[in-house]
Amino acid sequence: MAAPEFKIPRPHLGEPYLLTPGPLTTSYVVKQAMLRDWGSWDDDFRGMTRELRARLLDLLGAGKEAFDCVPMQGSGTFSVEAMLGSFIPRNGKVLVLANGAYGKRTAQTLEYLGRAHVVLDKGDYLPPRGAEVAKILADDPAITHVVAIHCETSSGILNPVEEISEVTYAAGRKLLIDSMSAFGAIELKVADIRYEALVSSANKCIEGVPGFGFIIARKTELEAAKGNSHSLSLDVHAQWAHMNKTEQWRFTPPTHVVAAFLVALRAHEAEGGVAGRGARYTRNRDVMVAGMRDLGFETLLKDRWLSPIIVTFFCPSDDNFAFDRFYELMKDKGFIIYPGKLTVVDSFRVGCIGQMDEHVMRQVVAAAKEALAEMGVANAAPPARALEERAILAA
Amino acid sequence: MAAPEFKIPRPHLGEPYLLTPGPLTTSYVVKQAMLRDWGSWDDDFRGMTRELRARLLDLLGAGKEAFDCVPMQGSGTFSVEAMLGSFIPRNGKVLVLANGAYGKRTAQTLEYLGRAHVVLDKGDYLPPRGAEVAKILADDPAITHVVAIHCETSSGILNPVEEISEVTYAAGRKLLIDSMSAFGAIELKVADIRYEALVSSANKCIEGVPGFGFIIARKTELEAAKGNSHSLSLDVHAQWAHMNKTEQWRFTPPTHVVAAFLVALRAHEAEGGVAGRGARYTRNRDVMVAGMRDLGFETLLKDRWLSPIIVTFFCPSDDNFAFDRFYELMKDKGFIIYPGKLTVVDSFRVGCIGQMDEHVMRQVVAAAKEALAEMGVANAAPPARALEERAILAA
Ligand SMILES: Cc1ncc(COP(=O)(O)O)c(C=O)c1O
Ligand SMILES: Cc1ncc(COP(=O)(O)O)c(C=O)c1O
Repeated sequence: MAAPEFKIPRPHLGEPYLLTPGPLTTSYVVKQAMLRDWGSWDDDFRGMTRELRARLLDLLGAGKEAFDCVPMQGSGTFSVEAMLGSFIPRNGKVLVLANGAYGKRTAQTLEYLGRAHVVLDKGDYLPPRGAEVAKILADDPAITHVVAIHCETSSGILNPVEEISEVTYAAGRKLLIDSMSAFGAIELKVADIRYEALVSSANKCIEGVPGFGFIIARKTELEAAKGNSHSLSLDVHAQWAHMNKTEQWRFTPPTHVVAAFLVALRAHEAEGGVAGRGARYTRNRDVMVAGMRDLGFETLLKDRWLSPIIVTFFCPSDDNFAFDRFYELMKDKGFIIYPGKLTVVDSFRVGCIGQMDEHVMRQVVAAAKEALAEMGVANAAPPARALEERAILAA
Repeated sequence: MAAPEFKIPRPHLGEPYLLTPGPLTTSYVVKQAMLRDWGSWDDDFRGMTRELRARLLDLLGAGKEAFDCVPMQGSGTFSVEAMLGSFIPRNGKVLVLANGAYGKRTAQTLEYLGRAHVVLDKGDYLPPRGAEVAKILADDPAITHVVAIHCETSSGILNPVEEISEVTYAAGRKLLIDSMSAFGAIELKVADIRYEALVSSANKCIEGVPGFGFIIARKTELEAAKGNSHSLSLDVHAQWAHMNKTEQWRFTPPTHVVAAFLVALRAHEAEGGVAGRGARYTRNRDVMVAGMRDLGFETLLKDRWLSPIIVTFFCPSDDNFAFDRFYELMKDKGFIIYPGKLTVVDSFRVGCIGQMDEHVMRQVVAAAKEALAEMGVANAAPPARALEERAILAA
């Protein structure tokens, strides 16, 4: 096997790898960019904001001219709320496609905003399919917008957004995408899929540190958003108009986080952009999943729906297995994993994103093997009812 | 003169000092704390959140038990909006005390939120006084809350919040304080002044880097805030309840910014807390203002209203003076100053906060002197109409 071209250094000072869906393990040079202060009003920082917006737009490929990029302070949820409050008019109605925590959070946000909505709730892990979305849209002409979660990070499922986009626009409605955990590693090229706006954040597949999100939207939507927002801070139109006029953020930007993100964006380009980043994450997932399956672990999802972002595994049925202890043992060995978010069966998650490659993933599997041995778990197979649960997926 | 006890190192690598009201010049060790990654779900990070909240509360002094601290992602404005939306019930009515940009922004936020309000607008630099506030409250029994700006950073005026608090509670109303640029350097001890809540942010007088703000509020107000907020992201009650239960932020925290802030909080304590920090800033101001006056510059405000946070100077009347050139010359010499925000006359601002001491302030004055000479400005005296403007203050 050829050596990987893109070298991943170990985290500094033996700190653990974060096998989590962000905050994730970032490179040392990304963090080093935070070792100075910037005046947010100064020309130097304005140039940084300009470069950030241009580089993010570049990821859309041909046709990007119709779009613009609006960074927004706060966590990713703040950007999702900003997108919903700014692009859905007060008399609009939303179809939320939910199959996990983030779809549900979108519905909850619309509740706060007082925007009419219906939810297609597929439970913990079933994908919303084009045909059912088409039917709901046909049956309810009041629906103006569909909101889809690209990678539903709570299970790791990669939702079929192309199929959803097709039926949405065939029915004359508009699509908004929460691509928080996927953007930068999974293509959302304007030439391939239609949508009005997407959101993501600094600390996901671009591999920056957390502190802001960004909304990428059609200029026509940005213009039409004037006066829609329920919030001064989260008003995408106001942020956009101010930034285009002054090259400054309306309110104090997280200057250091922005500086780190710029270095991360340059590294993203050097790795081959979305395709290169996605290829590494896919290899991470494949190596890790194969190794875990060898130990007896089972994934929640069939291969077809497994994202290269994060993978959910069932907890072993063995009485000696306890998640808290497994977490601590893995942490001692240098790997921070993530608890599951399923409602029916116990599970945990292992992320494939961040500054890690297949070599690291092999160490993860080796650490899991050791941890099982230390706990006295002979086989990592899940309880029968987990597999029954999963069988629904095949239907 | 005795050498200062608290040594201020020069910024790294010759980067300029930020004589701005935040982002400001932070110490190198504060920034070095950002050189690693944290899992936001992990125990280590939970402990950091716990320490942050406890240390901020400590600054209230005796009686702090009645309060709690809720950090909030985003810039300071996000925290102001969160405070307003969470603590002012939908049928409340607000008296906004405005004498500059931040008072006006509070009124604008209430506009977005659809909360009834009246504004006492004192223009660019006159302080709202107790007697006039008392009169407005007596005349309008519908008013439930008063919002005051502690240091109105757009002019640098230190508003008389004690006097405002007295009349507010004498009239049976509640006070909310935007102490963004003052908290940590000017006392707001619970034993000395009554209020329901205050906000500030990471990148002001505690000298952290930007990325979050915090709301410090009475527990009774936090409990009563349930269901008030117009926004999921900015719901102070929800953030508080979740944090108390899980020690986690509801949504991804700016982990690196939090780590830096903890180091900044420890340095704040080492410097002698609010009193020590305030003393250094006061000395910074006194040395800088005396030096600038020697050059012929005039401050907008009489000494009584000058805050130790930031000082507004009139631009010289000399035809050879141009602010843009002055800014560039000062930047070349290692000092980034700030443009003014007055509506009537030209001005600029010089901050006294951040990692600077009186020695640095002397260099600032020396740099201003050189810059004036290079521009061919013999005397920095302002135009006569600026002084006439100011004479109103004395009335
Ligand atoms: C799909 C998705 N949406 C929204 C969010 C929320 O982002 P944040 O935690 O930064 O608020 C996440 C976070 O992981 C996510 O994966
Ligand atoms: C008094 C006051 N309020 C509010 C703000 C807004 O804070 P931010 O720029 O972080 O949104 C500032 C910022 O300087 C301020 O000084």
